Amino acid sequence: MKQLLTTLVIFAIGSVLFISCSNTANESGTNTASSKDTKSDFDLAAARKTIDSTNAVFSGLVTKQDSVGLAAMYTSDAKLMGANMAAASGRAAIQSAFAGLFAAYGPVELKLTTVDVWGNNEMIAEEGTTAMTLKGKEIDRGKYIVLWKMEDGKWKLFRDCFNSDLPLAAPPK
Amino acid sequence: MKQLLTTLVIFAIGSVLFISCSNTANESGTNTASSKDTKSDFDLAAARKTIDSTNAVFSGLVTKQDSVGLAAMYTSDAKLMGANMAAASGRAAIQSAFAGLFAAYGPVELKLTTVDVWGNNEMIAEEGTTAMTLKGKEIDRGKYIVLWKMEDGKWKLFRDCFNSDLPLAAPPK
Repeated sequence: MKQLLTTLVIFAIGSVLFISCSNTANESGTNTASSKDTKSDFDLAAARKTIDSTNAVFSGLVTKQDSVGLAAMYTSDAKLMGANMAAASGRAAIQSAFAGLFAAYGPVELKLTTVDVWGNNEMIAEEGTTAMTLKGKEIDRGKYIVLWKMEDGKWKLFRDCFNSDLPLAAPPK
Repeated sequence: MKQLLTTLVIFAIGSVLFISCSNTANESGTNTASSKDTKSDFDLAAARKTIDSTNAVFSGLVTKQDSVGLAAMYTSDAKLMGANMAAASGRAAIQSAFAGLFAAYGPVELKLTTVDVWGNNEMIAEEGTTAMTLKGKEIDRGKYIVLWKMEDGKWKLFRDCFNSDLPLAAPPK
């Protein structure tokens, strides 16, 4: 019991040191000439929440098959780097690509799950997984890296590279 | 956290936190105008050159079908997020994935072309294109996003997500 108490106390001390460390970094960060560019005062956890809710909006637009709304979630200079298609550059091409996907797949549902995020106010890199269903049946599952950039005060998709976990039906030749 | 079973270990970690805390404070304090964490003093062009040469080494190892060498170019906590396969996490799984690809494709040549890079000393995101040939004949072309991290003083692949530009032989169902 005594040992457990000691352990807890030392954990507490460790935590205080860690928190104090973070605070020190933050305080120093705000004194720099370009504090907004330091990672120390960027709230990645808050950005992740924004990305989570943005991904929920994205999935909703997929359900509605709203290619115009989806294209607007990308930056004006974005690239949709989809699997088994050439990259679609810019909103018009991205809208067209989504319209084509909806025509090919039908009324799909897309679930996006963020695995991790890294970055700062300049750019966020997100790793995630996808699950696509059609009338409740899984038709694809996969993964992606999205690079997010702030445009017009919103985090938007700047690069969106994804692929399927499922093997090809036949070996590629 | 499970490993922190003894008070000695926790003491050690407490000390490390304390030292790391002091270092953080010192670095931020002494480099106020040009903190190492700001993008302002990070030489992205130089990093891009390093990535270019690293990609050349990568291609050379593909030619040699050296799955061990390729796996060593990834960080220890890397994920190879390849198309039409589940993500391979860690070097052993990545080596195995490359060995499988070599067995499936044969003596391929892989050309990597960097399109753009973004980031800082914490992480670099690279957009690129791939061209894969077998005995001089193109068998695939595609694109990728790679997230690079510094490990043991070298830029290594941390996340590697790629796919093909070529359409699927048959529509996915």
